[in-house]
Amino acid sequence: MTSLDDLVDRMPDVGPAATEPHARQREDRAARILWSGLLEPGDRVGGALIRARGAAEAWRLVEGSPSADVLAAEADIGRNEAKAAIERWAPRLGSRTAEEALERAERHRVAVLVPGDDDWPAALDDLGDHAPPCLWVRGGRGWSAGRDPSVAIVGARAATSYGEHVAGEISAGLAAAGVVVVSGAAYGIDGAAHRAALASGGTTLAFLAGGCDRAYPSGHTDLLERIAASGAVVSEVPCGAAPTKWRFLQRNRLIAAATHATVVVEAGIRSGSLNTAGHAASLGRPIGAVPGPVTSSASAGTHRLLREFDAVCVTGVDDVRELIGLDPGNGTVAPSPEAAGRIRVLDALSDRVPHRVEDVAARSGMSGADVRAHLGTLMLEGAAEAVADRWRRVR
Amino acid sequence: MTSLDDLVDRMPDVGPAATEPHARQREDRAARILWSGLLEPGDRVGGALIRARGAAEAWRLVEGSPSADVLAAEADIGRNEAKAAIERWAPRLGSRTAEEALERAERHRVAVLVPGDDDWPAALDDLGDHAPPCLWVRGGRGWSAGRDPSVAIVGARAATSYGEHVAGEISAGLAAAGVVVVSGAAYGIDGAAHRAALASGGTTLAFLAGGCDRAYPSGHTDLLERIAASGAVVSEVPCGAAPTKWRFLQRNRLIAAATHATVVVEAGIRSGSLNTAGHAASLGRPIGAVPGPVTSSASAGTHRLLREFDAVCVTGVDDVRELIGLDPGNGTVAPSPEAAGRIRVLDALSDRVPHRVEDVAARSGMSGADVRAHLGTLMLEGAAEAVADRWRRVR
Repeated sequence: MTSLDDLVDRMPDVGPAATEPHARQREDRAARILWSGLLEPGDRVGGALIRARGAAEAWRLVEGSPSADVLAAEADIGRNEAKAAIERWAPRLGSRTAEEALERAERHRVAVLVPGDDDWPAALDDLGDHAPPCLWVRGGRGWSAGRDPSVAIVGARAATSYGEHVAGEISAGLAAAGVVVVSGAAYGIDGAAHRAALASGGTTLAFLAGGCDRAYPSGHTDLLERIAASGAVVSEVPCGAAPTKWRFLQRNRLIAAATHATVVVEAGIRSGSLNTAGHAASLGRPIGAVPGPVTSSASAGTHRLLREFDAVCVTGVDDVRELIGLDPGNGTVAPSPEAAGRIRVLDALSDRVPHRVEDVAARSGMSGADVRAHLGTLMLEGAAEAVADRWRRVR
Repeated sequence: MTSLDDLVDRMPDVGPAATEPHARQREDRAARILWSGLLEPGDRVGGALIRARGAAEAWRLVEGSPSADVLAAEADIGRNEAKAAIERWAPRLGSRTAEEALERAERHRVAVLVPGDDDWPAALDDLGDHAPPCLWVRGGRGWSAGRDPSVAIVGARAATSYGEHVAGEISAGLAAAGVVVVSGAAYGIDGAAHRAALASGGTTLAFLAGGCDRAYPSGHTDLLERIAASGAVVSEVPCGAAPTKWRFLQRNRLIAAATHATVVVEAGIRSGSLNTAGHAASLGRPIGAVPGPVTSSASAGTHRLLREFDAVCVTGVDDVRELIGLDPGNGTVAPSPEAAGRIRVLDALSDRVPHRVEDVAARSGMSGADVRAHLGTLMLEGAAEAVADRWRRVR
């Protein structure tokens, strides 16, 4: 098993460019890498322990095979929860996952980000004990999740051309406006969102379920290269880790947490992108859903979000801008009393036969005085004209 | 001018089949017919006066040319409002509209419904002072707005084939379930809704903006005949009255008020059906909106309802049933802890190489005990199988 002290010695190559003046920070980074190799994403007990004792002290505690009572007291959790954690960590405590991941990271120019780094996306802290101990980042020149507005655009792998078109339009519009487009690099909607952001010269980030040294799906190897070259490819699991179904579900929580809003473009009724939206909702992030034909199964999931999860109906990039507070909206449905009177007067006028004010009043059910007032306005608008002492509608 | 007493003598032929034992009821009916000829739809002052004094006494008051002060006191309204009402009623007080309408009604077998009649839709009382004094009804054998659940299906005249298809599907499903389908007999969505309800052998009602002896639009003459033959064609304006734009807007309030929910299938961004939905919202009736492609201008209005008016996203007849309380809905997005554990164990299994429990535990990041528990469930589900002391995923 890799010890924390061994790993600290190997640290210089894997952190971001910023120098780390203190040994303590180096130790924290090394410990977080070890935790990253031990914990499955979203492990609450690991998160609680790290929060309570710091990553390094927490790691030394776990290395020492603590009793459930000790762990429960240190992490401020229940005894049964502590016992379950010890049991699930045990099979991995002897592994060399972290060390091997570091070797792969160096080969693939993958950096490790930890809380406190300039580029650490502070929004992830909203995950509390479910926050990842560190992030593995390929590329990262365009990484600025903490500073620029960002939107997750996610959706079905089995997207329609309609869905890909809309995802592309929204992504391009956002990217052109300086909004970071975040997605999951899958086929379908994700890919369309990344490609459009790249084509607009914007910044796009891909969060992967497996190690970010592995191109997944392999058909997106080139796309992931391009994303890494201008934005970043990010994962919470160590290099070399396989993209399991569980990690996809947990990866979705990172996409939701790292962004200001999540927009689902197309989704089947049980699509994983609904899971992303669910994470966004539980984090209080706004959810947008793009509607589509009710006859299209690829839109069944977005309609479910509109129905059951109070998602905002998103019809284009302006709606997304509004979702993240970049734009206001407005609109009314009923005519004002003033407009209503004018409508009634216009109804009562003919465009052929001119009528006297008294006739217009009888036809519209309004007083002569009101009719005269509205006729004045309509005349100024060019909608009505006087012919001697009668009035006619202008076609 | 037709006096109330004259009209009372003409009453036997225009009421519904129910006999009216009292002279007072006959007088009330006659007075409401006169009011129907005087007021433009939605005239609040007329409604307030009728509510305060009864239709007959109110009419005699107005026949006597009251001062604004007297009218204000009798109707419990402001003096200026009373003055404006007197001025707008004056041009029509000398007309024979009501008498002529009755002659037309007899020729076209149009009945007059008033509050208190068995078939009067009590839901209209929610309109308060804006309620119509009476309704003119052609057909009416299927009229049962007060008893059966009813839904308004409305939308754009310039509908797409998609919109007409969805309107037809929803209408047919509702009609087959005994829900009365209400619409406005316009081309496009309205017509599709009526036709599908008729084809399903259900009851459908058409509310017209003009007199219900006039087929409008004329291209729907046959459709209106069929609606009248099995359901009803209804209007608040007297026979012979023209369908003006104002009356369309006010007709929409009747459609919204007479039904338990309003569903808009397709609507341009300024469609009149948004006005119907606005009335439904102000009456506290639920609004449903059918989404469509964001690239279709015919769906821009329904998307606006979803965005700005808290409409419920409706994707089919089941959603509409739920909207009026006929069906519950359910659904969750996140996997349960139990399901989450199973997902992680399945992720860690191979469908080729069987693994020991300890390996599965390390791969999934779970304790051996938890893995064993989930393996048991997965085996019972046929998703995993034991091979000697190892486990494999079943394809």
